Amino acid sequence: MSKPKVFEKPTGVKDYLPAAAAKLRSIESNVMQCMERWGYREIITPTLEYYDTVGVASSTEDKKLFKLLDRKGTTLVMRSDMTAPIARVVSSLLKEHSFPLRLSYHANVFRAIEAEAGRDAEFFQTGVELVGDASSESDAEVIALAIASLQAAGVKQFKIALGHVGFLNGLFQERLDGRHEAQTQLKEYLLNRDYVGYRECIKSLELSADAQRELEGILRLRGGQEICQQAQQVTQHPVAKKAIAHLCEIWDVLSAYGVSQHVLIDLTMIGDFSYYTGMTFEGYAADLGFPVCSGGRYDNLLSQFGRPAPATGFALKTNRILEVIGKEAEEAPRRVLILYTAANRGAALAKAGELRAQKGVAVETRLQQAGDERRADVYEEILEFLR
Amino acid sequence: MSKPKVFEKPTGVKDYLPAAAAKLRSIESNVMQCMERWGYREIITPTLEYYDTVGVASSTEDKKLFKLLDRKGTTLVMRSDMTAPIARVVSSLLKEHSFPLRLSYHANVFRAIEAEAGRDAEFFQTGVELVGDASSESDAEVIALAIASLQAAGVKQFKIALGHVGFLNGLFQERLDGRHEAQTQLKEYLLNRDYVGYRECIKSLELSADAQRELEGILRLRGGQEICQQAQQVTQHPVAKKAIAHLCEIWDVLSAYGVSQHVLIDLTMIGDFSYYTGMTFEGYAADLGFPVCSGGRYDNLLSQFGRPAPATGFALKTNRILEVIGKEAEEAPRRVLILYTAANRGAALAKAGELRAQKGVAVETRLQQAGDERRADVYEEILEFLR
Repeated sequence: MSKPKVFEKPTGVKDYLPAAAAKLRSIESNVMQCMERWGYREIITPTLEYYDTVGVASSTEDKKLFKLLDRKGTTLVMRSDMTAPIARVVSSLLKEHSFPLRLSYHANVFRAIEAEAGRDAEFFQTGVELVGDASSESDAEVIALAIASLQAAGVKQFKIALGHVGFLNGLFQERLDGRHEAQTQLKEYLLNRDYVGYRECIKSLELSADAQRELEGILRLRGGQEICQQAQQVTQHPVAKKAIAHLCEIWDVLSAYGVSQHVLIDLTMIGDFSYYTGMTFEGYAADLGFPVCSGGRYDNLLSQFGRPAPATGFALKTNRILEVIGKEAEEAPRRVLILYTAANRGAALAKAGELRAQKGVAVETRLQQAGDERRADVYEEILEFLR
Repeated sequence: MSKPKVFEKPTGVKDYLPAAAAKLRSIESNVMQCMERWGYREIITPTLEYYDTVGVASSTEDKKLFKLLDRKGTTLVMRSDMTAPIARVVSSLLKEHSFPLRLSYHANVFRAIEAEAGRDAEFFQTGVELVGDASSESDAEVIALAIASLQAAGVKQFKIALGHVGFLNGLFQERLDGRHEAQTQLKEYLLNRDYVGYRECIKSLELSADAQRELEGILRLRGGQEICQQAQQVTQHPVAKKAIAHLCEIWDVLSAYGVSQHVLIDLTMIGDFSYYTGMTFEGYAADLGFPVCSGGRYDNLLSQFGRPAPATGFALKTNRILEVIGKEAEEAPRRVLILYTAANRGAALAKAGELRAQKGVAVETRLQQAGDERRADVYEEILEFLR
């Protein structure tokens, strides 16, 4: 193995130069302020967690976790998301705090294997968790807040795809009872949005004409509120029917928020996370194939940390939003250079102090030297204290 | 080795609950804004770096580095400071940018062994690097900015101790030429501020009366500008005399900034960092034994990354500042709860949206349920949409 060159950094990690850092900061600050206005309070957790607790509870595949050993030989992980760490805090430091708890975060998270696929090994997530409320009101709240957060981040055009894990679970139980391998395979196709593969797989399963029509039919179950009514016709399974009824309730609340025009019901949507137990959603920006946010209900996670509670939340994929939004987002300060001679130092530095007290001004000072450049491309204004 | 309990986190790392997180955020935001007004632009670098590049170049002892292997078997480190990563970026991505470069950061850094000594294994630093300027003006600029940053962070009472590595190096060369072990031992005593040990060590060295008096005398070289004059009398070594002259120049610029009342010259001060090459400084807050910031000139680091350049900078020890500043620092938003029935949902959520558009208001909404608590200790205002 060759030694890395001195200026190299590891595969899959990034430097953010000032322009990119300013843009990232502006997203972070606008979104965190938005979440605060909705009553969510920020918490910060450590980068390192125990593998046996947060690592195992996280939704990330084991091979994607960055692992290391502490001095006692215990395995640590670099956090791969913020949901499991927050569940740990809710069950320990916050265990005396009554529900519902509204918490927000902006954090870097780590995925070990992504680098080789050209994906980021470290990236930012900005999100919320609403813990201790099982109602469809709270599901709708986090979806409405995801919409408000995307808007606060400067994402102009987007759609939220809304589904429910209960629908497919119920339907598959009804039509593919006991055929776990077939169920998993079909879910894989849906997860990858490979509808051709899904259709071919169904044909290969030797089902009744009814069942085949029904399982194929769900590919058309994408649209507005009317999809709820249509879906109620498709299945008689109580788990699936309950899921649909829940989505209808969420839709009503989203209408009351005045944001249902951003939402599309998509009953073929499978949350990426194995721990989702109810509604799941993903946000798609125009012109971008990847989701810019994802979220859902996870009612089983908290019990792993000893404080059983329903919970729902979402995370913005902050780095993808960085790519989507325009460059105009940042407000750069007016850059001023003050050049001076030693004899005029006092007056020059006093002027710098005066300008720095103003909003939106960045002042650099410099003792004049032979060959000094006056870079008009860098500074909006150059003040001279030279005689 | 016992399995960690489910709610435990690794030794030496922290959760910041909302009150602490808000305070940390307010320090971060006030200090970063202050640095921006002085012309410093934020950069963000990855948490993981190559051991052979940034790890080796960092000022952190090898055993204190968190190490892990990537999939190719190359050793990575979790960054232990931001100076070496920034040197890497200045020498690579920013290599076409002309000097001086003013860069700022707020970042978490990692030290592996501290946990066992009850110290943090992960903590925050907020700082700047001024690269490509060797003048005493730039040394004074970063000291003046450190003072402005401490004030922006809310630290009310503090002193900056200012020294120069050249003074002791010159003096020791003059008086203890070739006695490297003795030099190292004396520096250790000074680093630990063990002045009794320092005096005893000098006595044991069998020096001339002159040399002994002189080496003991430096313990009194702490004070204002007058110390520069006194120190010039102590030594004839050119390296030491140049160091003192440089400190005098820095003092003049600090006076022009109008901040010299915050500064104390301390010629016994040894920078903690092995890579300092010129002036070094530490900030001490009243009632706290540890420094709240430290910095200095490091003119040799950049050449390790292939772009030789003088540089100077400092880092605030943000976590220590968190302990020093009062609780009044944060501006908490006014918390409002809106309770509603399903029939009044539209009006209630509309009101929530209206209030959220105002500055400094955090609004939670809730569908009324049997047994709902109206917690006056949590909410400043509770609005009801119940009939």
